[in-house]
Amino acid sequence: MKINHNFLNLQESYLFSTVGAKFAAYKKAHPEKNVIKLSIGDVTLPLAPAVIAAMHAAVEDMSKRETFKGYGPDQTCYGYETLIRSIRGSYARKGVMLNDGEIFISDGAKSDLANILDIFSAENTVLVPDPVYPVYVDTNVMAGRKIVFADANEENGFLPMPDRRVDADIVYICSPNNPTGAAYSRDRLKAWVDYANERGAVILYDAAYEAFIEDGSLARSIYEVEGARDCAIEICSYSKTAGFTGVRCGYTVVPDTLTREGVRLGKLWARRQSTKFNGVSYITQMGAAAVFTEEGERQIAENIAYYKRNAKTIAATLDRLGIPYTGGINSPYVWMKCPYGMKSWEFFDYLLENANVVGTPGSGFGKNGEGYFRLTAFATAENTAEACRRMEDLFGSR
Amino acid sequence: MKINHNFLNLQESYLFSTVGAKFAAYKKAHPEKNVIKLSIGDVTLPLAPAVIAAMHAAVEDMSKRETFKGYGPDQTCYGYETLIRSIRGSYARKGVMLNDGEIFISDGAKSDLANILDIFSAENTVLVPDPVYPVYVDTNVMAGRKIVFADANEENGFLPMPDRRVDADIVYICSPNNPTGAAYSRDRLKAWVDYANERGAVILYDAAYEAFIEDGSLARSIYEVEGARDCAIEICSYSKTAGFTGVRCGYTVVPDTLTREGVRLGKLWARRQSTKFNGVSYITQMGAAAVFTEEGERQIAENIAYYKRNAKTIAATLDRLGIPYTGGINSPYVWMKCPYGMKSWEFFDYLLENANVVGTPGSGFGKNGEGYFRLTAFATAENTAEACRRMEDLFGSR
Repeated sequence: MKINHNFLNLQESYLFSTVGAKFAAYKKAHPEKNVIKLSIGDVTLPLAPAVIAAMHAAVEDMSKRETFKGYGPDQTCYGYETLIRSIRGSYARKGVMLNDGEIFISDGAKSDLANILDIFSAENTVLVPDPVYPVYVDTNVMAGRKIVFADANEENGFLPMPDRRVDADIVYICSPNNPTGAAYSRDRLKAWVDYANERGAVILYDAAYEAFIEDGSLARSIYEVEGARDCAIEICSYSKTAGFTGVRCGYTVVPDTLTREGVRLGKLWARRQSTKFNGVSYITQMGAAAVFTEEGERQIAENIAYYKRNAKTIAATLDRLGIPYTGGINSPYVWMKCPYGMKSWEFFDYLLENANVVGTPGSGFGKNGEGYFRLTAFATAENTAEACRRMEDLFGSR
Repeated sequence: MKINHNFLNLQESYLFSTVGAKFAAYKKAHPEKNVIKLSIGDVTLPLAPAVIAAMHAAVEDMSKRETFKGYGPDQTCYGYETLIRSIRGSYARKGVMLNDGEIFISDGAKSDLANILDIFSAENTVLVPDPVYPVYVDTNVMAGRKIVFADANEENGFLPMPDRRVDADIVYICSPNNPTGAAYSRDRLKAWVDYANERGAVILYDAAYEAFIEDGSLARSIYEVEGARDCAIEICSYSKTAGFTGVRCGYTVVPDTLTREGVRLGKLWARRQSTKFNGVSYITQMGAAAVFTEEGERQIAENIAYYKRNAKTIAATLDRLGIPYTGGINSPYVWMKCPYGMKSWEFFDYLLENANVVGTPGSGFGKNGEGYFRLTAFATAENTAEACRRMEDLFGSR
């Protein structure tokens, strides 16, 4: 019996555990201090009332023989038509028309981003941005794929553009980006679509934060870009859109027109999912289907507006302090440059000790993250405002 | 870009779609006939009241800021302690003591059976019984592993025993078995554990149907067998135990003592799950935690008793008719020999046309299934009794 030796090439991820340990140690040494965490990527507002009502109704359905639901429908890889139709409607409102069979329901974007790799050869070369959501890297290390990095830095506004000297088969794009908060315009995204179509590469487009976009020139779906249906798979999530981090629902779009080596990738994905997955809870699906109703959309818009006000509070503070950053406007993340030329971890300690504010060191997301720091908009409005006041006190006089 | 060419080696599974198509065609031609389906592996009884109450309460928790839950706990791969504790309690009542960190919560046994393969090298040889649940085969074909088969047939009572001339690294055992309903005694299972420990193989033990066991000499967990903690991973499900086919919850046990090449397999599985998975809905987990409470266990026992009465009705009918079968007692499946020496599909057509009863042709599960037929206990009691009356009419005079 041999284990998968690729696992031995994984780097242990100490980022969030080190952040947690340092936070805990500080709290222990200074129990009287009110430490504010702007490090979390998890939501804090409860589910929208429309979602709660739909879930209660679905639980009731499961209590009676006449309305009980077993395995989800086979024909759609276990997705209920109500939910699929609501997603199709949400796309139509962005001007993107999707066909039957192009939308696959899952237990979240993270699972899909990882599992979709099953349909690709281990011999492909993967292109990921740096800094990066660690899942893109680790899942490919597990499969033994070659990984190349695209530098995201101050020069390119943390939005790397294609380099035709780099030969990649699978390209990851996350826009608005985690951790940098930077978002691609349709024009810039078109350059990536062209790059992929020229060489037959596939783009894995992580749209988990699309609901935070307000600038009309930015793409909310890669399918707003011409040619994307021939090269891109889009992975979406209800986690940040509707506060589903603890409910687990996402969806992946594989266009009918996306084929490689004469095989429709949607057919491979359907085979993968029907063999290795058994669908998402009926209760979860009914809750998710309530998100893109008129009532649901109004309610989730309020929640997103709440987080966006937090992001703007942070961004306005950095503006006043003259500290450079990306994100903060079309994203729940603010990616700030560490002041005084500090390194990421150095700044972490400095901010914790002097402002009692916790964030995430940028160096934990890749080499280009060194000297940067991620703050999130998911805390309460009160805590966000208080953290900003403290930063203003600390850096206002520099 | 290369696709995963192993997918091209998958056989299209026509079994259930052909069953469905033949059923639909017959219904269309004979709309007046009341066709009874004993082919389904899906449950029909609603969720237990204790589960429903727990899920409503969990939905309420998600509606308020103070009790809202985001991502599940990191330390346990997203499983809530309440649920893990209840599973540990359920094992303790079988005499199996599990440690902290040995239980992993998931969205179902099918996902875990498929995903656990990520931690093993693609060079391993896999041993699966024939007939077999197709997922064991297809998931390994996708990874390009070599597969060898262990014949399950009338001679060995559909319980193959280890053949030391066969060199396998990963061994699948499902007991009580799908599709044959046959279940291993502790003694026979011990032979497999010894085989695995001798050569350092790993057993993947699918215990999805353990709740149907009533015979005290049969193992409800492989860990009832000495030595199993050194070689076996056990995969369990709430699907048949508590009617969770549409709710999606399962759990996998990886003992601390199970290491290969000096690496603890539980550590690899935790890394796989924390990288490629994000946990199970809080609402689902709270519902599952109600299953192994005193009230929950009493209620699910009633549901299981209902299905078992159905199984016994079918078995008693076959006894009276002198038709050989396995299962029907410690299992929701009855695996019958086709009468008159018919082949599986021939019998399917015969039974559909002459008794208006639908089952599943055994040949769809592997070469040793030819000449056999699977009936399930998951229909209503009324339909099961009526189907049996028709079979008695049809075969009583042979």
